[in-house]
Amino acid sequence: MSGAVAIERRPPARRSEFGYFIDITTRWMDNDVYGHVNNVVYYAYIDTVINRYLIDVGGLEIHTAPVIGITPETSCRFHRAFAYPDKIEGGLRVVRLGAKSATYEVGLFGPGETDARADGLFTHVFVARATHRPVAIPETLRAALARLA
Amino acid sequence: MSGAVAIERRPPARRSEFGYFIDITTRWMDNDVYGHVNNVVYYAYIDTVINRYLIDVGGLEIHTAPVIGITPETSCRFHRAFAYPDKIEGGLRVVRLGAKSATYEVGLFGPGETDARADGLFTHVFVARATHRPVAIPETLRAALARLA
Amino acid sequence: MSGAVAIERRPPARRSEFGYFIDITTRWMDNDVYGHVNNVVYYAYIDTVINRYLIDVGGLEIHTAPVIGITPETSCRFHRAFAYPDKIEGGLRVVRLGAKSATYEVGLFGPGETDARADGLFTHVFVARATHRPVAIPETLRAALARLA
Amino acid sequence: MSGAVAIERRPPARRSEFGYFIDITTRWMDNDVYGHVNNVVYYAYIDTVINRYLIDVGGLEIHTAPVIGITPETSCRFHRAFAYPDKIEGGLRVVRLGAKSATYEVGLFGPGETDARADGLFTHVFVARATHRPVAIPETLRAALARLA
Repeated sequence: MSGAVAIERRPPARRSEFGYFIDITTRWMDNDVYGHVNNVVYYAYIDTVINRYLIDVGGLEIHTAPVIGITPETSCRFHRAFAYPDKIEGGLRVVRLGAKSATYEVGLFGPGETDARADGLFTHVFVARATHRPVAIPETLRAALARLA
Repeated sequence: MSGAVAIERRPPARRSEFGYFIDITTRWMDNDVYGHVNNVVYYAYIDTVINRYLIDVGGLEIHTAPVIGITPETSCRFHRAFAYPDKIEGGLRVVRLGAKSATYEVGLFGPGETDARADGLFTHVFVARATHRPVAIPETLRAALARLA
Repeated sequence: MSGAVAIERRPPARRSEFGYFIDITTRWMDNDVYGHVNNVVYYAYIDTVINRYLIDVGGLEIHTAPVIGITPETSCRFHRAFAYPDKIEGGLRVVRLGAKSATYEVGLFGPGETDARADGLFTHVFVARATHRPVAIPETLRAALARLA
Repeated sequence: MSGAVAIERRPPARRSEFGYFIDITTRWMDNDVYGHVNNVVYYAYIDTVINRYLIDVGGLEIHTAPVIGITPETSCRFHRAFAYPDKIEGGLRVVRLGAKSATYEVGLFGPGETDARADGLFTHVFVARATHRPVAIPETLRAALARLA
């Protein structure tokens, strides 16, 4: 379980900061023994928002693309819990766009809510699928990411 | 998928830094389409190491305890990928022990390996189960955490 | 991975057989190493359709209800694979409504499709939360289930 | 949640029926809101036992094998619940070995227990990875499966 606690830190991300949104449906087994969505599952939501954008807008072909994104680091802050059967709106923005890597922020919102219930940072380093050596971000993908930067 | 990338940062956590270990078995569905354990699943491993210590050593009774831990923030760094059917050894240490909260580091190692393949930080704020108001860490639990600090 | 194979058996369930539908969004980590939704995850979809109906229509209060459903048996047939980022429409019907138990069929469809890509059977025995002894299905819930029988 | 209910049916599978065993560790998030391992997760255990045998004994190379197993049907019976942090011993046997398909039974046991807490049936049809057309089971794999039949 994850949840809201008053500790001093940057306020929750706000809806207006994000340029791309998808709907996410929660699942029965997302809830843990404490009755709310387990903290782990938020990362599955985050992963899903990012890859959906890479696929739908960035043209990523996950089964055959010669360049794929791998992850050196992720983090998430939890402000207010979701619980199945809640619906979630996941927002995406690009906070850093490098030559071979990008860092995204994903905000997870209740329907229509202004403040994120959770916000996470996620970095992708783009590598050759075969060798896992870092390579330049492919042009179509880069253009798509630039639109959210 | 997560994986090793050479970017400048603190080196991977080392086995000698951790005082408690459990075995974790990977599962077929941990692997994602890129053939390695999905980054999300590492958080399930981390969660499992921490709660196992709270239960086995700290005396946490997850179904009835009046005080439970909730999570304001987690993060993980990925150094080298696991893939099913790998076995994992998860190590735990306490990096900060406050009056009402604790921050753990978990290192995930291949069998016998010295450098963590991934290391994560995870904070628990202890709250009253009924109200979710922060409360002092119960004494038995606190003593158990102090042993790993 | 699961998938379509020509073996002799009852044809896939059809959309017209189901009286209640919800949308389900797939997640990046639903896909396994073979590039399609792992067979295990279909059961998470099935679970989600059933419990959503019990909560939204049947009035089940999952955190406090004195009577809960436990599962003696489930099964699923896979006809044609889903893959993230597919959208899924999950349909529910009640195939047997007993005094203390019910068996559901769930059909999982692509948007607008007539034939289920997967269909599963799932039995709930209703028990007292405290003792796990079978009890009569509560009246509100029973009325909701009767509507889909 | 899944659980034990007295309905008339074949008794639980017994340990002596299985010729191959692996250890499985449960995870915090395996438990659902009712405090026991969610029924869905048992299928992840089953999947893991089968594929482990195919890989370790049958020589399956999941990333490159030209022939892979896909699943037309699975089922599971739940006799007595597991809960994190339980340890599980998963047993495997082959109940039917055809030219192009095999059906396994997996029994999930508590450490040293004689009666399975859950037992599942799982069919693999072996297909060409590229076309998904059924093909003969490769000889090495077939020999491995025959040993458990």
